[in-house]
Amino acid sequence: MTASATQGTLTSAENTRGKHNFSAGPAVLPEAVIRRVQQDIWDIDGSGIGIMEHSHRGPVVDGVWERTEAACRKLANISDDYAIMYLQGGASTQFSMIPANLLPEGGTADYINTGAWSQKAIKEAKLYGTPHLAASSEDSNFDHIPTDLKCSDKPAYLHFTSNNTIFGTEFSDEPACPEGTFLVCDASSDIFSKPIDVSKYGVIYAGAQKNLGPSGVTLVIMRKDIAERCERTLPSMGMYKTHAENDSRYNTPPVFGVYVMGVVFEWILENGGLKGMAIRNAAKAQAIYDVLDAGFYKPHAKTGSRSMMNITFNCPSDDLNKVFLKEAQANSFDGLKGHRSVGGIRASVYNAFPAAGCQALAQFMRDFAQKNG
Amino acid sequence: MTASATQGTLTSAENTRGKHNFSAGPAVLPEAVIRRVQQDIWDIDGSGIGIMEHSHRGPVVDGVWERTEAACRKLANISDDYAIMYLQGGASTQFSMIPANLLPEGGTADYINTGAWSQKAIKEAKLYGTPHLAASSEDSNFDHIPTDLKCSDKPAYLHFTSNNTIFGTEFSDEPACPEGTFLVCDASSDIFSKPIDVSKYGVIYAGAQKNLGPSGVTLVIMRKDIAERCERTLPSMGMYKTHAENDSRYNTPPVFGVYVMGVVFEWILENGGLKGMAIRNAAKAQAIYDVLDAGFYKPHAKTGSRSMMNITFNCPSDDLNKVFLKEAQANSFDGLKGHRSVGGIRASVYNAFPAAGCQALAQFMRDFAQKNG
Repeated sequence: MTASATQGTLTSAENTRGKHNFSAGPAVLPEAVIRRVQQDIWDIDGSGIGIMEHSHRGPVVDGVWERTEAACRKLANISDDYAIMYLQGGASTQFSMIPANLLPEGGTADYINTGAWSQKAIKEAKLYGTPHLAASSEDSNFDHIPTDLKCSDKPAYLHFTSNNTIFGTEFSDEPACPEGTFLVCDASSDIFSKPIDVSKYGVIYAGAQKNLGPSGVTLVIMRKDIAERCERTLPSMGMYKTHAENDSRYNTPPVFGVYVMGVVFEWILENGGLKGMAIRNAAKAQAIYDVLDAGFYKPHAKTGSRSMMNITFNCPSDDLNKVFLKEAQANSFDGLKGHRSVGGIRASVYNAFPAAGCQALAQFMRDFAQKNG
Repeated sequence: MTASATQGTLTSAENTRGKHNFSAGPAVLPEAVIRRVQQDIWDIDGSGIGIMEHSHRGPVVDGVWERTEAACRKLANISDDYAIMYLQGGASTQFSMIPANLLPEGGTADYINTGAWSQKAIKEAKLYGTPHLAASSEDSNFDHIPTDLKCSDKPAYLHFTSNNTIFGTEFSDEPACPEGTFLVCDASSDIFSKPIDVSKYGVIYAGAQKNLGPSGVTLVIMRKDIAERCERTLPSMGMYKTHAENDSRYNTPPVFGVYVMGVVFEWILENGGLKGMAIRNAAKAQAIYDVLDAGFYKPHAKTGSRSMMNITFNCPSDDLNKVFLKEAQANSFDGLKGHRSVGGIRASVYNAFPAAGCQALAQFMRDFAQKNG
């Protein structure tokens, strides 16, 4: 048993603070995790020193590193063929770091365009080579996941965004990867929300601030042979191999963020693992989609492409959207305003969002529809 | 009065946890700050949501941003001619970001080499232009701050490391800046430990993990006309103007780190400001230097170049170094092992390190010298 685990069980998500936090990210954390963090920033592992104040090369942080990596590998059954890295700068930094390291000069990489984050990734890739659009759902304002891929000949990689926070769509399965290349996935907003076969991927990256922890740390899971590559001369901090070879401690890493992520991994393990998350998340989302399917509301995402993480919809009119959001806020439903690209309402219900909050929102939505229908 | 300030006064540094934490960084934080953070990660500003879980574009984080910037400007009297940015990747990322943005193709920038961190900065600059060595103390293992500068003709900037964590040396004043250029300072390990005239600088950058907060956020203070420059085509995240124009919220910033830094700024303000820190830090360091000057121990840094933040010394023999460190650890003095470049002992006594800890170490050192002298 780890030192951390001896400090008390990380029980399931609760909501004793009264607010339903539907923020799209940074997002709600399990209350049991926050309670643990409150203790450990004062004194972790009986060291007499808080987690923010320990040397990143000392024995306590060594322990945090070991626990975090072990929990991450256990969660998603990640083999030793993959490096696990904790980087900084969010997915936005990965958008350029991926092609800078992995797209040869003059080379082509394939991208699936499923929304704003895919578009940003494509924009940054243009600095290094030629991104090829393998598929796009832009014509219908990204209301579905395109399935008909037209890949280029021997792309360096195929990049996709597994869940689209703004539009509320999600890949239910990985896209078919052309032979001789590998998948690169921006999984920022659905990582570890369901089982994943990591062996199908070359690279998975995710900003922590939706399903994993606070903003300021990016989880990168990368096949080790890919992490060793570097297609051009880059600054030390811009090369994956710098971080892979130094166990994410080439320079001072974001220790606190990594530590919280590790506690979240333990929380997931203690609450059914990825299978448990998937069952819980599906039931949570279904409670809201059931209301959308009963009429009145207009869901944005097409059936079959619906996200389990971000549920996007409009009321019958913009005026009603405004009334909805105002009344929701007054009823302790926070963070429901949709992104301007879709408008209306967005309910973000990541791993740590409690099931009771989804049921409460569904009831509020039914009442609102009845009153205004 | 800010919402945060109503939550209780941030009283001076205390040590109720029993350990003297001399870590070189990440380093000790004021206990009053940690107590505030414990509360705010559960529920900040009465929002019913913790600081790690709020949208970076919502009103609570707006408030944190405003308070943090206001406190930072007040602390060091920073005018509106300067942008204040919160970046990621530590000083190690600034080592390349500075020349990438500010050193023209084929241009020259001047560097003062005062140790390992200066050397890393010089190494990264070579990717973009020609760093010119204006001065160096490498010949004497960086035991002093060189004062005789030989600058190049019209350098893009003059870069220096104001405090050298590993060697225990510190600039007492800014180096003379050649006309027509500007100073760039890596102030990671002495920022806000004493008054600073920001108007003398073009750029000041500092990883937070020594004097300002947890690792994972870098404070960058940059003259606005410099922040608008960009000498080459760079990824969005690699350009200062991206962050300056978007108030450090182009993408999801490290909200928690910025928040803690803001509370530390308030703690400094409530404890005498930079003048108060300087008086306190000088007395703290003097208590230890007095013991070094009494014989037995061998201080590394020359008088006149001594750091108020990191005090480096050896015992008369390597064997005695080992005994010293072992006995120190047994007496709750933590993190005293020196860096391998200097060996022996290093006491890091940043702003938040309590004066009583310095007195306790001085007494321990006197006793040890008497016993082994």
